[in-house]
Amino acid sequence: MGSIYGTLFRISTWGESHGAGVGVVIDGCPAGLPLCEEDIQKYLDLRRPGQSVYSTPRNEADKCAILSGVFEGRTTGTPISIEVRNTSQRSADYSEIASYYRPGHADYTFDEKYGFRDYRGGGRSSGRETIARVAAGAVALIILERLGIDVCAYTKSIGDITVQNFDRDEIFRNTLYMPDKKAAAQAREYLDDLMKQGNSAGGVVECRVSGLPAGLGETVFDKLDAELAKAVMSIGAVKAVELGSGTSASHSTGKENNDEFFMENGQVNKSTNNSGGVLGGMSDGSELILRASFKPTPSISALQHTVNKSGEDIDVSIKGRHDPIIVPRAVIVVRSMMAIVLVDMMLRNMTARMDRIEDFYRR
Amino acid sequence: MGSIYGTLFRISTWGESHGAGVGVVIDGCPAGLPLCEEDIQKYLDLRRPGQSVYSTPRNEADKCAILSGVFEGRTTGTPISIEVRNTSQRSADYSEIASYYRPGHADYTFDEKYGFRDYRGGGRSSGRETIARVAAGAVALIILERLGIDVCAYTKSIGDITVQNFDRDEIFRNTLYMPDKKAAAQAREYLDDLMKQGNSAGGVVECRVSGLPAGLGETVFDKLDAELAKAVMSIGAVKAVELGSGTSASHSTGKENNDEFFMENGQVNKSTNNSGGVLGGMSDGSELILRASFKPTPSISALQHTVNKSGEDIDVSIKGRHDPIIVPRAVIVVRSMMAIVLVDMMLRNMTARMDRIEDFYRR
Amino acid sequence: MGSIYGTLFRISTWGESHGAGVGVVIDGCPAGLPLCEEDIQKYLDLRRPGQSVYSTPRNEADKCAILSGVFEGRTTGTPISIEVRNTSQRSADYSEIASYYRPGHADYTFDEKYGFRDYRGGGRSSGRETIARVAAGAVALIILERLGIDVCAYTKSIGDITVQNFDRDEIFRNTLYMPDKKAAAQAREYLDDLMKQGNSAGGVVECRVSGLPAGLGETVFDKLDAELAKAVMSIGAVKAVELGSGTSASHSTGKENNDEFFMENGQVNKSTNNSGGVLGGMSDGSELILRASFKPTPSISALQHTVNKSGEDIDVSIKGRHDPIIVPRAVIVVRSMMAIVLVDMMLRNMTARMDRIEDFYRR
Amino acid sequence: MGSIYGTLFRISTWGESHGAGVGVVIDGCPAGLPLCEEDIQKYLDLRRPGQSVYSTPRNEADKCAILSGVFEGRTTGTPISIEVRNTSQRSADYSEIASYYRPGHADYTFDEKYGFRDYRGGGRSSGRETIARVAAGAVALIILERLGIDVCAYTKSIGDITVQNFDRDEIFRNTLYMPDKKAAAQAREYLDDLMKQGNSAGGVVECRVSGLPAGLGETVFDKLDAELAKAVMSIGAVKAVELGSGTSASHSTGKENNDEFFMENGQVNKSTNNSGGVLGGMSDGSELILRASFKPTPSISALQHTVNKSGEDIDVSIKGRHDPIIVPRAVIVVRSMMAIVLVDMMLRNMTARMDRIEDFYRR
Repeated sequence: MGSIYGTLFRISTWGESHGAGVGVVIDGCPAGLPLCEEDIQKYLDLRRPGQSVYSTPRNEADKCAILSGVFEGRTTGTPISIEVRNTSQRSADYSEIASYYRPGHADYTFDEKYGFRDYRGGGRSSGRETIARVAAGAVALIILERLGIDVCAYTKSIGDITVQNFDRDEIFRNTLYMPDKKAAAQAREYLDDLMKQGNSAGGVVECRVSGLPAGLGETVFDKLDAELAKAVMSIGAVKAVELGSGTSASHSTGKENNDEFFMENGQVNKSTNNSGGVLGGMSDGSELILRASFKPTPSISALQHTVNKSGEDIDVSIKGRHDPIIVPRAVIVVRSMMAIVLVDMMLRNMTARMDRIEDFYRR
Repeated sequence: MGSIYGTLFRISTWGESHGAGVGVVIDGCPAGLPLCEEDIQKYLDLRRPGQSVYSTPRNEADKCAILSGVFEGRTTGTPISIEVRNTSQRSADYSEIASYYRPGHADYTFDEKYGFRDYRGGGRSSGRETIARVAAGAVALIILERLGIDVCAYTKSIGDITVQNFDRDEIFRNTLYMPDKKAAAQAREYLDDLMKQGNSAGGVVECRVSGLPAGLGETVFDKLDAELAKAVMSIGAVKAVELGSGTSASHSTGKENNDEFFMENGQVNKSTNNSGGVLGGMSDGSELILRASFKPTPSISALQHTVNKSGEDIDVSIKGRHDPIIVPRAVIVVRSMMAIVLVDMMLRNMTARMDRIEDFYRR
Repeated sequence: MGSIYGTLFRISTWGESHGAGVGVVIDGCPAGLPLCEEDIQKYLDLRRPGQSVYSTPRNEADKCAILSGVFEGRTTGTPISIEVRNTSQRSADYSEIASYYRPGHADYTFDEKYGFRDYRGGGRSSGRETIARVAAGAVALIILERLGIDVCAYTKSIGDITVQNFDRDEIFRNTLYMPDKKAAAQAREYLDDLMKQGNSAGGVVECRVSGLPAGLGETVFDKLDAELAKAVMSIGAVKAVELGSGTSASHSTGKENNDEFFMENGQVNKSTNNSGGVLGGMSDGSELILRASFKPTPSISALQHTVNKSGEDIDVSIKGRHDPIIVPRAVIVVRSMMAIVLVDMMLRNMTARMDRIEDFYRR
Repeated sequence: MGSIYGTLFRISTWGESHGAGVGVVIDGCPAGLPLCEEDIQKYLDLRRPGQSVYSTPRNEADKCAILSGVFEGRTTGTPISIEVRNTSQRSADYSEIASYYRPGHADYTFDEKYGFRDYRGGGRSSGRETIARVAAGAVALIILERLGIDVCAYTKSIGDITVQNFDRDEIFRNTLYMPDKKAAAQAREYLDDLMKQGNSAGGVVECRVSGLPAGLGETVFDKLDAELAKAVMSIGAVKAVELGSGTSASHSTGKENNDEFFMENGQVNKSTNNSGGVLGGMSDGSELILRASFKPTPSISALQHTVNKSGEDIDVSIKGRHDPIIVPRAVIVVRSMMAIVLVDMMLRNMTARMDRIEDFYRR
């Protein structure tokens, strides 16, 4: 349960690390959107493993196929099924972990909930699950682009190394997706050091959205920030979600934290953006800013204590090469989840006012 | 839209600050639960204004009435309608703010979304909206109590003053709901100082849940932490939600952040609790720990710049007495939203395993 | 559970026959709709008991109150809470039925599901539950009216007496809501006869909707006819729902049942309307026609066999005056449920096409 | 939109007649259910074309593949993705119908809703869409079987020929799935005659479910019969859904239609079953009986009038071999939709009572 997300733009994902593949069915994508596999592949390639020394060398092409919902190059309004077949999985690698609970992983909770688990490569809790999010996110990003909305995400920090400058072009130039060349170099050093110790690092992904109209989001439970918090917190390894001034708002005062309004070229504008673009759960027309804190990769080769299924205390070293940091590959996942929520909210928002509904049907 | 929450235990809230009242309809409360108005009132009284110098002096009794779904002292399985009538509102107080957009408030976004707004006392975005959450939360807390689950929430910090000791009994002894007498005294000083300046403070609410079985929560989008993040972020003024080690996880290493498992009295236990009780989106049997960062009260008497509906730049001072801090009164709101999510997740979890379904119907 | 209906225009109803009252919360009503209590009362009066010799003499005013979501005469976009307090209930009348299961009623199933029931006046399964449907339906009908859509419902048949002529003005002239004066006279005779025997009758309500644009409804599960079937079948005592040619389609041939298309004044038109206005789950632009078959009122004074809660066979005669026919009072309920579905479907349909979404946001 | 169904046992279907294939993702299937492709294939074979002279000769194997959610022969609790690839489609056959609107088909409404359509073989409105329903239904039927519930469906009538005797073994012996050998022979004659005229027939599918516990279904909108009505009405070509005495209830009297209760072997029983197993929206423990009326196949070779996309009146004869009757192949589709609803309702029902929830978690 719980693999379906959204109200009008709804995605239903499936797939395990070592099953036949992973995929998503998008129900509610508007008709008439130009879409082809290459459009989606471009985004999938951003999360693909084997891109750098910091990601697992499982070198799969992760080629997507659109199985339905597109005809003559345009979406038809019917469900779009996208799948990526698994090709390079080797189940043998994972036989050992079937017997014990890896610290920081979902092994124990899966067994407690369902009585057993597909232990191969983390099963449903594998990072490969995010392929489906990115495939759906690609469609959402294409929709937003047509509506003049830009969704930009990047690595904000790795360990204690935080970007100091924002150079958008730099994001895709370094394998860590950091918009600051110097910070990226420092982070690489930090990661190299941790890898030697069989250890791993955490970090922060930041996402900025510009071009949003004001008024997106609902006023009580389905606030824009609440939906974004759920969507981003649902990504594996995320331990905190912040909007705008975030945790620092709690240390601030009203005078400091309030964003004053002023007029600029006949438009309402804000002098600061501590709100992160959301007031009362609705977009306020300024840039939307969200940050997600990721815990360090739980799979480490350094020795750890744990228990096995027979209830014995044991020491383990997680075999295989694992990413020493989840963050860079999670950048496109955060961006995808943001886009999915924003499309859903834009569709929902169309029915907010009676006068606009009358205009629509008078058409 | 967006005023309904939950999958099986579903709440539908309504009401504005200066309308007839506020209320909630709970659809999906199990039958046979002993329930009366006093049970709910006890929780409502915890968020009631007029409790201290730090909360608005609008001294309403906020008396709740159960209008349906309870017969002979027990819930019947049909919707429970609970309402609290507004009694002391004075709309005249708010006529001025109808014409401009208060910084940090939802005035501007409401107008942008809906074309106009009920400006009296914040309308639907008033703190009074949380009465409905607390009424529903009371029912959820009563259910959880019967299942042996304890939900404890308190003020973790106000501005830079953080509790150093945890004395549970102290929580309800001071009006700031802090479990540390000394920190509470410091916080009072800090707040008194801000009030003199017509300024306000932010803070952090922490919630700890014990007694949860392992396995609650779904594995992908409806992860336990994701649902909690949405529910808590949907409370007005929350800018960040963290689970367990939260934002600090990003500065940690895998070796530090992983919670090692060990056996204790035949049970699987964890040496630390950086996970905050959630692994892979499911409860891991240890204490659930969540923190919410609240921004400072946006209503301050100190002079602020803003714009009015005619598109003119103006300076304003928000009239009326306002809480210099939202946090203490939000403690029960966070606790309520946590309880609502947990009950829903416990109900959803009952259908996870075929063997247990067969047992249930073989009964 | 199951007292919430709709996707975007969502209603949440509550209330029992002999509790404090009944009500509905509408979440998702567009902002800016002129609305006042009189608008709703007009529709509630159409289902009110005490209107004729064929309906129960419980003479309640059923006055509605709008508690939220309306400001200065217009909806605000926030939840609209409408309630009708019960005033004339006398629980003493119902003490006897607490002990046994009335044939044709939900007494037995309630006890089996929930372990006990609010037996007073049928509790949640009372006809009074439909007040909430009609209150929500009133709002939906007002929305549809602004969009040029007319929803007309009437008594099609009572027992074997079917209307032969359709005189729309006649509908509200006779207490049976039949559009055929002669048939109404015959039906009255039939009912008078049954009442003397302590017996009751069934009948059919027909609903016709004109002015609908083509394309409403979704293509697979949420077909327009499927949603209407659910909404109408959810009204107590409905045993069959038909669209267009309905059950008679099964006796027809393709050549007879297909509606041929032809051009008329530059518009696509249909030579017949066996489809009842729905093709492939979407409105086809012609009149929508739905029929609901109601079973006879189960409460009859004639002697019936049944069992009591102690598991004993007994004979009973249902005391009190009961409507000998449900149909006339159900006419407005069917019309309401149709309207609720249609509004929801019109809102959902706004997001069907990318070009229209782009137009909307380019505005 | 609208291709997702269910609350806890949720299915998300996709696919067009001439795309890559059709499929379903089941979210919420309990863990631990033994399941393999053969289990599903057995049901798919019941709806497969090419079985008889009365069904289209498109002879596809319709082999299903399970792509996720099953590990070592048992469901894992994660989404089950099942797909059937299209193999024998020939798009060339359908080029002509791209230009005009077939009477009785969704061609016109698709164009009106989405602006264009995948015209090949009916696209999403093709009968092949039901493959996904049957695949999901197979899983539901397997679950119900383990819970002691039997779902039996068959052809009740074709045109005016109705089964007179019920011989369950006969159902799968004749290609029309009629439980009456003699009626089947008459129906074959009737169909042969119609085929010669390039015409088609309608009919009725009946479904009977035994072994259901009392109390399934929710009391207001999500009544068991309401959910079943939606699920069955959502099958293409269904024009009416009836429960128990159905349309004939409207001609009956309370005395005739009420099912009297009596005790039998310590159990509450009913003397008749006009309710069709549902009272007040909840199962009453007796056999559930539902009937669906299907219109005749709209694709006929006899000449029909219609319009083309250029707005011209034309005469057409639908080319290609088409089933002269939908009903036999729809039998397994009705059975599948019934099973899907029943599983969902059984899961939802588990949370109805507090005492049972306490028992569950005390386990």
